Amino acid sequence: MKFNNIGISISSKATIGNNVRIGDHTTIYDNVVIEDNVVIADHCIIGEPLSNYYDNPDEYENPVTVISKNSLIRSFAIIYCGCNIGQSFSTGHRVTIRENTKIGNYCRVGTLTDIQGFCKIGDYCWLHSNVHIGQGSNLNNFVFIYPYVVLTNDPTPPSSTCNGVFIDEYAQIAVSSVILPGIRIGKHSLIGAGSIVGKDVEDFMLVVGNPAKEIKKVTEIKSRETGESHYPWPFRFERGMPWEGIGYEKWLKNQR
Amino acid sequence: MKFNNIGISISSKATIGNNVRIGDHTTIYDNVVIEDNVVIADHCIIGEPLSNYYDNPDEYENPVTVISKNSLIRSFAIIYCGCNIGQSFSTGHRVTIRENTKIGNYCRVGTLTDIQGFCKIGDYCWLHSNVHIGQGSNLNNFVFIYPYVVLTNDPTPPSSTCNGVFIDEYAQIAVSSVILPGIRIGKHSLIGAGSIVGKDVEDFMLVVGNPAKEIKKVTEIKSRETGESHYPWPFRFERGMPWEGIGYEKWLKNQR
Amino acid sequence: MKFNNIGISISSKATIGNNVRIGDHTTIYDNVVIEDNVVIADHCIIGEPLSNYYDNPDEYENPVTVISKNSLIRSFAIIYCGCNIGQSFSTGHRVTIRENTKIGNYCRVGTLTDIQGFCKIGDYCWLHSNVHIGQGSNLNNFVFIYPYVVLTNDPTPPSSTCNGVFIDEYAQIAVSSVILPGIRIGKHSLIGAGSIVGKDVEDFMLVVGNPAKEIKKVTEIKSRETGESHYPWPFRFERGMPWEGIGYEKWLKNQR
Repeated sequence: MKFNNIGISISSKATIGNNVRIGDHTTIYDNVVIEDNVVIADHCIIGEPLSNYYDNPDEYENPVTVISKNSLIRSFAIIYCGCNIGQSFSTGHRVTIRENTKIGNYCRVGTLTDIQGFCKIGDYCWLHSNVHIGQGSNLNNFVFIYPYVVLTNDPTPPSSTCNGVFIDEYAQIAVSSVILPGIRIGKHSLIGAGSIVGKDVEDFMLVVGNPAKEIKKVTEIKSRETGESHYPWPFRFERGMPWEGIGYEKWLKNQR
Repeated sequence: MKFNNIGISISSKATIGNNVRIGDHTTIYDNVVIEDNVVIADHCIIGEPLSNYYDNPDEYENPVTVISKNSLIRSFAIIYCGCNIGQSFSTGHRVTIRENTKIGNYCRVGTLTDIQGFCKIGDYCWLHSNVHIGQGSNLNNFVFIYPYVVLTNDPTPPSSTCNGVFIDEYAQIAVSSVILPGIRIGKHSLIGAGSIVGKDVEDFMLVVGNPAKEIKKVTEIKSRETGESHYPWPFRFERGMPWEGIGYEKWLKNQR
Repeated sequence: MKFNNIGISISSKATIGNNVRIGDHTTIYDNVVIEDNVVIADHCIIGEPLSNYYDNPDEYENPVTVISKNSLIRSFAIIYCGCNIGQSFSTGHRVTIRENTKIGNYCRVGTLTDIQGFCKIGDYCWLHSNVHIGQGSNLNNFVFIYPYVVLTNDPTPPSSTCNGVFIDEYAQIAVSSVILPGIRIGKHSLIGAGSIVGKDVEDFMLVVGNPAKEIKKVTEIKSRETGESHYPWPFRFERGMPWEGIGYEKWLKNQR
């Protein structure tokens, strides 16, 4: 049993590349560009229109949406118009990505994760399940965010201020943490599970707690299994990373 | 590209008003009333039946469900039978609203929010993404609840006690907070991010922490941008509110 | 209005029992076995294939998936191939259960709950809404987990270590708690709302807080309503349990 072509609706104004497979009950709206070798699984909506489409469909023009090559969008995803998604993107199920979000190459987004629009996400970012990326968030490359993390943006709710979070490269935010509006998370830092982060976090720092406090440098964290230092993590982890097979040190030298 | 009428199923016992648009793959069950100018987007289920429908569909009679005029229900919503939803309601995606929930006028419910049934929600309430409203919760008008908040109801789980939370008008609950069973949240109060609230909260009070403690009056909170007091918020925020264009003070006088 | 047979896709290699009802827009993949008297509601995906199906559908063989008798799978569920689900299972909506998960008999899984695969769950476990069960978790019988709880598994993220949580029988984990990797939760224990649990929890212990600390024995917790001890809960709660009608004490004697 394979792709069945049941209940699919593809706009005549969409552009579909070679070797693209589209699942049952999926809708592709106007001005969506799907590059080669992309899989869009069942029950997806790609190029979801903005509010004024519902107000006045006859005069509405859908902004361009791009899903780049070699991507796999699993079932029940909703990706709004105006998004630009890099190559080799992959998702879990029920992902929602709102308008005007730019995602780099080789990113992964887990089941139920909700990206609220007007976000900028670098390359090789992994957002696990059920992450909430507030509107206006900005993630550098190689950022890892774990389940039930919330990135906020309004310092005095309700207001019309959108003061998104910035997360620098190689930073990680463990499960169920909250990053308060406008906070900057330094590179290679680690936010422990369940932290409420209300102050900027320095590079290479471990912070934990409610409210979150500096504990120590991440370089002082030992692996329970090996007893050796586990961080900075790129020296210890390479699956899916551009240094896979050659190691981070060598890759880093090649970058310079 | 517009509404395509693919895979739609509408009960012959449903009542559909004028200028109603219904998205692809959407199902409208028996005894649903959809008033004029409503949009129900793709993949929705309106009037989802109770458990005994699945046990015995031949003898089951679906309670009446009302979606009032000018509402916009975005894709993948599930609204159970027995709900009564006021006018100009709007939702994000994947909203679940269980049976016998009454929602007032001009409310908004964000993506993934789950209202567990037998709830009463006033007018102009805004529930953002991924909020969990426990069964039996009661929200007055103008209540704002932010992502990943959980309203609970069982003081000694598991039990058959359902002791819902009460939230008074203009109160706000910031991201990832938990309100314990039977708690009353006073009007104009503000619950800070990540708070676990186990005591009643007085009117106009800011509470924060795990466990949540009183910090100060909300009137003492300054906006970082203006340096002025931001609360009570209706004096500072009017988008979508009934005082938009005239200001809260004037509107309040007109109400008396 | 009943099951309409709109947009359904059932593999010719699936095995469907007697008196099975399948909702609109639902897909049943290869090698799924659905036993008698099961209801699969609308928009479900049963037997969701593994990643290599998307890479190479022509050579892919889907592992066997079993949904045992008398189960009710509500709408928008995704159950992966390789799962074995016991009898009288019931779910809310939008449940995701990844591959190679074994679930016992008489379990319930609430709306939005995400079981990440390679998990073992006993009999009579109730996972409420929006619970995240990390890969490799192991739950004994009669475990109750409440909304927004996260069970983790990686002690030094990112890594390839999967050190799942073990939860012993009759334990309960209240809303928005996090259980850190490899932790053991003792039988009849109670984890209070919003706890971050980084140490093993003894049998019959109440732990609360961030970080979670031992408070007292659960037997010392009084019901606010009756003033009597509420725990161990099986003596006070029997709805849906195997001792319903006869009481836990008598049932326990019969077990010996």
